[in-house]
Amino acid sequence: MNSISPLIFEPLVRTALLEDLGQGGDLTTNAVLPKDQHAMVVLAARQDGIIAGITLACCAFHLVDPSIKIDVLLPDGQRVSKGQLIATVSGSAIGILAAERTALNFLGQLSGIATATAGLVDAVKGYRARISCTRKTTPGLRAIEKYAVRVGGGSNHRFGLGDAILIKDNHIAIAGGIETAMLRVRASVGHMVKMEIEIDTLDQLEEALRFRPDAVLLDNMAPEDLRKAVEMIAGRAIIEASGGVTLETVTPVAAAGVDIISVGWLTHSAPVLDIGMDFRW
Amino acid sequence: MNSISPLIFEPLVRTALLEDLGQGGDLTTNAVLPKDQHAMVVLAARQDGIIAGITLACCAFHLVDPSIKIDVLLPDGQRVSKGQLIATVSGSAIGILAAERTALNFLGQLSGIATATAGLVDAVKGYRARISCTRKTTPGLRAIEKYAVRVGGGSNHRFGLGDAILIKDNHIAIAGGIETAMLRVRASVGHMVKMEIEIDTLDQLEEALRFRPDAVLLDNMAPEDLRKAVEMIAGRAIIEASGGVTLETVTPVAAAGVDIISVGWLTHSAPVLDIGMDFRW
Amino acid sequence: MNSISPLIFEPLVRTALLEDLGQGGDLTTNAVLPKDQHAMVVLAARQDGIIAGITLACCAFHLVDPSIKIDVLLPDGQRVSKGQLIATVSGSAIGILAAERTALNFLGQLSGIATATAGLVDAVKGYRARISCTRKTTPGLRAIEKYAVRVGGGSNHRFGLGDAILIKDNHIAIAGGIETAMLRVRASVGHMVKMEIEIDTLDQLEEALRFRPDAVLLDNMAPEDLRKAVEMIAGRAIIEASGGVTLETVTPVAAAGVDIISVGWLTHSAPVLDIGMDFRW
Amino acid sequence: MNSISPLIFEPLVRTALLEDLGQGGDLTTNAVLPKDQHAMVVLAARQDGIIAGITLACCAFHLVDPSIKIDVLLPDGQRVSKGQLIATVSGSAIGILAAERTALNFLGQLSGIATATAGLVDAVKGYRARISCTRKTTPGLRAIEKYAVRVGGGSNHRFGLGDAILIKDNHIAIAGGIETAMLRVRASVGHMVKMEIEIDTLDQLEEALRFRPDAVLLDNMAPEDLRKAVEMIAGRAIIEASGGVTLETVTPVAAAGVDIISVGWLTHSAPVLDIGMDFRW
Amino acid sequence: MNSISPLIFEPLVRTALLEDLGQGGDLTTNAVLPKDQHAMVVLAARQDGIIAGITLACCAFHLVDPSIKIDVLLPDGQRVSKGQLIATVSGSAIGILAAERTALNFLGQLSGIATATAGLVDAVKGYRARISCTRKTTPGLRAIEKYAVRVGGGSNHRFGLGDAILIKDNHIAIAGGIETAMLRVRASVGHMVKMEIEIDTLDQLEEALRFRPDAVLLDNMAPEDLRKAVEMIAGRAIIEASGGVTLETVTPVAAAGVDIISVGWLTHSAPVLDIGMDFRW
Amino acid sequence: MNSISPLIFEPLVRTALLEDLGQGGDLTTNAVLPKDQHAMVVLAARQDGIIAGITLACCAFHLVDPSIKIDVLLPDGQRVSKGQLIATVSGSAIGILAAERTALNFLGQLSGIATATAGLVDAVKGYRARISCTRKTTPGLRAIEKYAVRVGGGSNHRFGLGDAILIKDNHIAIAGGIETAMLRVRASVGHMVKMEIEIDTLDQLEEALRFRPDAVLLDNMAPEDLRKAVEMIAGRAIIEASGGVTLETVTPVAAAGVDIISVGWLTHSAPVLDIGMDFRW
Repeated sequence: MNSISPLIFEPLVRTALLEDLGQGGDLTTNAVLPKDQHAMVVLAARQDGIIAGITLACCAFHLVDPSIKIDVLLPDGQRVSKGQLIATVSGSAIGILAAERTALNFLGQLSGIATATAGLVDAVKGYRARISCTRKTTPGLRAIEKYAVRVGGGSNHRFGLGDAILIKDNHIAIAGGIETAMLRVRASVGHMVKMEIEIDTLDQLEEALRFRPDAVLLDNMAPEDLRKAVEMIAGRAIIEASGGVTLETVTPVAAAGVDIISVGWLTHSAPVLDIGMDFRW
Repeated sequence: MNSISPLIFEPLVRTALLEDLGQGGDLTTNAVLPKDQHAMVVLAARQDGIIAGITLACCAFHLVDPSIKIDVLLPDGQRVSKGQLIATVSGSAIGILAAERTALNFLGQLSGIATATAGLVDAVKGYRARISCTRKTTPGLRAIEKYAVRVGGGSNHRFGLGDAILIKDNHIAIAGGIETAMLRVRASVGHMVKMEIEIDTLDQLEEALRFRPDAVLLDNMAPEDLRKAVEMIAGRAIIEASGGVTLETVTPVAAAGVDIISVGWLTHSAPVLDIGMDFRW
Repeated sequence: MNSISPLIFEPLVRTALLEDLGQGGDLTTNAVLPKDQHAMVVLAARQDGIIAGITLACCAFHLVDPSIKIDVLLPDGQRVSKGQLIATVSGSAIGILAAERTALNFLGQLSGIATATAGLVDAVKGYRARISCTRKTTPGLRAIEKYAVRVGGGSNHRFGLGDAILIKDNHIAIAGGIETAMLRVRASVGHMVKMEIEIDTLDQLEEALRFRPDAVLLDNMAPEDLRKAVEMIAGRAIIEASGGVTLETVTPVAAAGVDIISVGWLTHSAPVLDIGMDFRW
Repeated sequence: MNSISPLIFEPLVRTALLEDLGQGGDLTTNAVLPKDQHAMVVLAARQDGIIAGITLACCAFHLVDPSIKIDVLLPDGQRVSKGQLIATVSGSAIGILAAERTALNFLGQLSGIATATAGLVDAVKGYRARISCTRKTTPGLRAIEKYAVRVGGGSNHRFGLGDAILIKDNHIAIAGGIETAMLRVRASVGHMVKMEIEIDTLDQLEEALRFRPDAVLLDNMAPEDLRKAVEMIAGRAIIEASGGVTLETVTPVAAAGVDIISVGWLTHSAPVLDIGMDFRW
Repeated sequence: MNSISPLIFEPLVRTALLEDLGQGGDLTTNAVLPKDQHAMVVLAARQDGIIAGITLACCAFHLVDPSIKIDVLLPDGQRVSKGQLIATVSGSAIGILAAERTALNFLGQLSGIATATAGLVDAVKGYRARISCTRKTTPGLRAIEKYAVRVGGGSNHRFGLGDAILIKDNHIAIAGGIETAMLRVRASVGHMVKMEIEIDTLDQLEEALRFRPDAVLLDNMAPEDLRKAVEMIAGRAIIEASGGVTLETVTPVAAAGVDIISVGWLTHSAPVLDIGMDFRW
Repeated sequence: MNSISPLIFEPLVRTALLEDLGQGGDLTTNAVLPKDQHAMVVLAARQDGIIAGITLACCAFHLVDPSIKIDVLLPDGQRVSKGQLIATVSGSAIGILAAERTALNFLGQLSGIATATAGLVDAVKGYRARISCTRKTTPGLRAIEKYAVRVGGGSNHRFGLGDAILIKDNHIAIAGGIETAMLRVRASVGHMVKMEIEIDTLDQLEEALRFRPDAVLLDNMAPEDLRKAVEMIAGRAIIEASGGVTLETVTPVAAAGVDIISVGWLTHSAPVLDIGMDFRW
């Protein structure tokens, strides 16, 4: 079961709420609303997409007021259509309004990532390729953004520099060659760390394969070169393709037979999914 | 002078670096590179735009290794063309590689916001309207995203719920009317807090103006209605227009004579500016 | 409704408890009391005043032991007479004693501020003037101290340097004049930020008013000068008076017709309200 | 040498600066001042007193801008007369203005405590009594407030519940008597922890002394009773007097021969020392 | 009652859980287990010892999932035999597995300390000596390690540099002698701070006693010298012996008549108590 | 190059210093030493071992006083003999004494781990086996303890639950078998995550190998069974042995031909390396 622990996301939600409340708190709502005003609201999609982050939205409401009741109609991973309800929220109107923007900011951003991911996943259906994210994430939010990618049906690349090896062109250049770089890695890292190496040309590929990488990253290769590479590799390593992949260009990349297609913009430039909060009283 | 204090952004950069380093640190670089390897790299734009966040990028390098030397060629606010150099960075290769992604993530995201803002600012040149952001920001990063909007020539809306009043439709509905809502606010908040009220129809406008708001927010009005509203207001309040404004639709909104055009997607959905790091040895 | 979110004050209470517990915890109570000792105590005023901070006191007890039961008899904003009960607290004696000093420190300090504020508010009753605090607050406690001022019937000045403009003499001197300073501000800040300017002489006043400040701060002016200033301003700006105002001198200042009287000592030097905890078993 | 480590106070200064800067930073100064404006200012006393906290004030300036130069003329513990200079500060005008209020808030509050302490110390000169503080401190600031008491010539009571024993009336009541309470403590705490017991009547005193407390706290006793108690104790324990001691009443308490006079208002209600910052250009 | 507040240990448990979960969470359990899988497990000792830290283990489970039910069979301080059950834990299998290692790491480490302490305590039974820890603790865990020493029947030395005086050889050397060092301390510290002085030779002892230390630390003395020292001191100070004490050597040290035997390895090198978690379904 | 970033360890050192200083700071040293006392000290080994953590010790001195000068004679990874100097430290005596214990606590604990690791590494010299640690680490210190294992010549197992897969007996039992468990993992986790499976019997081994794990963990197998398992596996997976391995039993395990021998006590029960600080004036 894909999930994310509140231990990880609660501090982020708390920080976001404090950022929004400032020192004064919700000046408008506190001034205008009676203390005991009750409200019943719905979270509703203003466009089609995939829901991700509903537990973070719930967390925002509950951190402001633990007595707020939430009924989640569409949990993370569900498709939502424009106009469809995602959750109903009832309780203190003051609390609901204070948490609204923070809840929607998380929900919109994560659902945007999940929706973009699902779009690519749909586009490669029938091929072996899985859609993966990169380390091009919003600073401080990597754990929840990578979670949203999984919600959208994608798969995660490494979480950071400290949990897997990716030997890039500059590493190779400084080391003085693929062999040296790969042997140094092999001698250094633990047995539970995977090693991937970035390959820019087919010439490099054969040399790299001799040192048995777990995966090779084929960077910015045209589909025909990808296909040749897939053939050369012949199952000896996991094959990842990356570089400028869009919804328009992803299918030929998948058709080349690669295992993983990694896409930076999923986490750094996917537009938010427009979700709003409406009063039902 | 527009600026942002390192007191505000340094903790964000530190968090992002730790998020990327994990517990293991930069496994690849530590394994492959000699400890004393020196490097000289450049940060270069891969597309046209406006630079924002270069001090955060510098901060990332310096937090990893204070001895890294950086020469900033294009400070925040400068236009950059595809291929142009933004900064040169020299020092420990290990340190430079460990900070690379964090530095680029901040720089790309903030430059993306500044670039998007500048696009809208250019599109309303000649009109009195200023481009403003909203509270639809990335959780935890509001201060730096609002700074990036300023870098792009835009102007900031309130920073949160605690520093200014915005009476929305739900506040009005719960209060039982515009008059009650505005009087309650006036009685409650300090003399340094501005009061804005959201107006959905021209009928509401006249009533609101009687209670002398500092600003009125005209939500989702067509340009012709905006023009009528501007005329009715006749300088009695600052006029803000919002709702679905894009680069394509912004000019007629400005032409209607409003003071402020606020745009949520500047901070939640602007694509990053593509900036890369290249070795020059 | 005036209020403050636990999101804001709970971390302060937690820090204060840890500061008091040290690494050893409540050595005395842990040594002397049986683990299951039950207690029933009351919080009682030892002098007349206004209660502020009772929710922070409750928070202290509940952070130490969530099962402690508290019955608040006098919520924030209520007047209390010497000897009157504010709350009853019952539960684990060990927990109650461990939280006692922290609870009372918050309650006494905030009630002291509220009481001092209410004294000034009473003294200007019948005039339009409102009593306001300044930025001369206890480091780290500004949000709760400003809340206590509101509880006492006062009004808040800006929360910090980042939410409103106050152009002081030094700004004017460096800018080279009132006009330059005010125009620079107007060009720089967002539309939801109010601008106030400090005025030391009536000569400066007319110049400042030409650039339409939201408020003017009349610093250390005698009541007769204040009266002249009020006349000159004639409703064109909110009028704030400040400088050495005490309970003895506040009424003539208010009688001069100003809108706001700001008083630094409310937050930096108001004596605590003496509140004690007594066992009732 | 009395001192306090920056490790302890720097986080407090940082928090206070962030509290004042908000998300927007120093809007006024950033708008009005040229980026490269240099300033030379002095910190000067507006009333007589004892300086405490000048290193915290320096820390505030340096956290905002490490290049600011400070020349401290009167370090902590020095007497200052109205009008006398405490330090000169030169460097970036923007930085100096951004840190001003935070620096002065710490300096004023701690100097106020030191000044009040010194007043009591002077009043008991010639007697053996030392002036001590209590745990009635500002939440979160105990370490620096206790330091300010030392600067003023006073002495510190325990830092919290975890570093020394103080058996109070309620402990005795729950334990069922002085003997039980003291024996339980003796059996429980480490050999480096001192034990003090609160004594309300002379009858209790003899019983308590049988169990050899390190100190006895004579609570709210009249000077004549204190004198009798001092005689009874005859050097068998350190003698502390407390309860409602003021500058007017402290001398007779000291004359009764006690070792320690503890005073809560030193830390919770001492007025700040008025210190200002003046431009010298 | 010996105890430790969750206010103190909860942040440590939270940090440890986050350290273990990383950004990805429990990848294995999340992948393999159904979301609603229920489990019933037991914590059981794999060797004889003393339990300490069971509340921290409970805290680990509850932070991961508050609905997990725990029945503690052997609370802190109880002896446990190999194979004996300590607690039963039931609830979400996913939550239990995610918290398992963190819970066991705390429980094993603290029980190891308590067990080692109890071993020494048993070895000195019949003598007046108490077993005490030192400041040689695991960085960041001093409060809980000192608690574990108490659980094992030991007693705590000072918690740190700030709550008691220990004058060591280097202090004496720099001061220029025992007298100067002790007088400086007496003049400087508060009346609730105990003073201990390290003594390397019997010659030093008499001089030190003239200045009435609360305790003397006899460092690395042979039992016969300890006996002489005890005689010389004759009740004038608490007597602590330290230096290389092991289970083999502790009895003669106690037999020499000292009050306290302090042992560094209790907290820095005691082996963990082996405790495991077994599924009972 | 094996290393660890100060970004990771500096917060730990800072926390440890604050834990030791308490609110009062170094009472003894502050009382006894002149403010300007200079000192020159050495860190010296009191037993043979491997140095690890010298940069953390340096960090402790520098956080207390950045002007302290340190000359490291034996950097991390060097063997040290009893009596040999590790570093010389000179500067403020007050600063050096305040940091001493914290510096030594880190240095002793990490050197203890490195020394224990090196002992095992030496014992398997000539075999292919590498010595690895586990997740049985001190809560909060995993990153630095795993670093110390690397310093000692060992290799790191996964850093936590979130960076690699380890399918244990309970996972298999709940999943209903090895096949289901492994397929669920394969379908769920990213391509950069390694999968290891715990094997208790040789019967399980063949089934597991069919699903191509990256590694198998042979738990508590006798050397003869290990040898059979190595033969069966025949290079199809990395082979890890674990369970009760000591310096006495490690060689036969290595001789069985396994790749990795993982040892929990390296991080949870290795005794500290005894390192002291001596004044040289």
